[in-house]
Amino acid sequence: MNIIKFTPRQEKIISLVEEFGPITSEKIANKLNVTRAALRPDLAILTMTGVLEARPKVGYICSNKTSYSMIYDYIKDIKIKDIMSKPVLVNEESTIYNGIVQLFLNDVGTLFVVNDDNLVGAVSRKDFLKIAIGGTDIHKVPIGIIMTRMPNIIYLDKNDSVYSAAKKIIEHEVDSLPVVDIATDENNNEIYKVIGKVSKTNITKLLLDISENN
Amino acid sequence: MNIIKFTPRQEKIISLVEEFGPITSEKIANKLNVTRAALRPDLAILTMTGVLEARPKVGYICSNKTSYSMIYDYIKDIKIKDIMSKPVLVNEESTIYNGIVQLFLNDVGTLFVVNDDNLVGAVSRKDFLKIAIGGTDIHKVPIGIIMTRMPNIIYLDKNDSVYSAAKKIIEHEVDSLPVVDIATDENNNEIYKVIGKVSKTNITKLLLDISENN
Repeated sequence: MNIIKFTPRQEKIISLVEEFGPITSEKIANKLNVTRAALRPDLAILTMTGVLEARPKVGYICSNKTSYSMIYDYIKDIKIKDIMSKPVLVNEESTIYNGIVQLFLNDVGTLFVVNDDNLVGAVSRKDFLKIAIGGTDIHKVPIGIIMTRMPNIIYLDKNDSVYSAAKKIIEHEVDSLPVVDIATDENNNEIYKVIGKVSKTNITKLLLDISENN
Repeated sequence: MNIIKFTPRQEKIISLVEEFGPITSEKIANKLNVTRAALRPDLAILTMTGVLEARPKVGYICSNKTSYSMIYDYIKDIKIKDIMSKPVLVNEESTIYNGIVQLFLNDVGTLFVVNDDNLVGAVSRKDFLKIAIGGTDIHKVPIGIIMTRMPNIIYLDKNDSVYSAAKKIIEHEVDSLPVVDIATDENNNEIYKVIGKVSKTNITKLLLDISENN
């Protein structure tokens, strides 16, 4: 997978090095019928992007980094705090019906459940749908009964890479994850304050923004 | 937004051109206290990536393409057929209850509704949840009653870029879109055959794959 769009000549250079490397720039120039000076910018691009390596007195070889990815570096540099959006929070005493109403009012797929400021659970559209067809009285039963409960909730740190958010979302097969700040209360208990969320929608928007170069 | 990680010297060159451009390579070399020859690979990188432009007899200026994106080119090159997954299809006579069961069995968020091989509708977890809390008899009412109906369904072409899939998903606020092949039947009616789907999950996986350089 080449990330950079190489020119036809650069592609030819790569083929030559693959076939004949180590090969000197002089020999490459000969085979391509150009001067060494003309090749210099191409070779600079190819070595700086890590596709080729220049070995003094030996010539060019293909780099061990089989497919250097600038996109990888780029995405690793985007932080969760750069793309996270506002979470919708409910109490665990709220009825399931109220939760569903919140879901529609805010047009989100997941609610995060807090006790005071502390994350205690999460509940998704899928959870709500399952209970809604099951004959439960959704006007009476509280969200606490159906939510996924801490410590079984995967969460994110605002300073982590969006890469780790995408990885956790896919690995744990969820639509959305909470971003938390962890603090301790007066009794030295850990408090998970929900300060944001990252969903597949945020990731899809990111891909769009990257493509449109915003 | 710089996509390439430039070296500190390349960053300095960009700053100099921003401040003093048009500026000759000789003057840049002077200001950086290096030889022109030493600068050549850096200037090659900066012009080939489109950050700087070389104007003969004038010098270097910052390119009009304010932030050239190789990622943009890269993502535009990935086709929908490269990331699409298998769609889950139902008939419009299926009951809503059966639809919900299909949703859970296949662990998808959207069902596509076909009549013979022709796309006639789509129905999402959100549509199902809305009806499930409304007192409708979901064991009797067919999916055709609640689905979004053609021609109101946005669809994708397998040869389009994933960029266009992400754009349509975000613009139309849906989770998943069908990929269709359009043919005509014996009566010259258009048939929209569903051959795949692209969801926010596919896009999230793509971002993960790009990051991991698969």
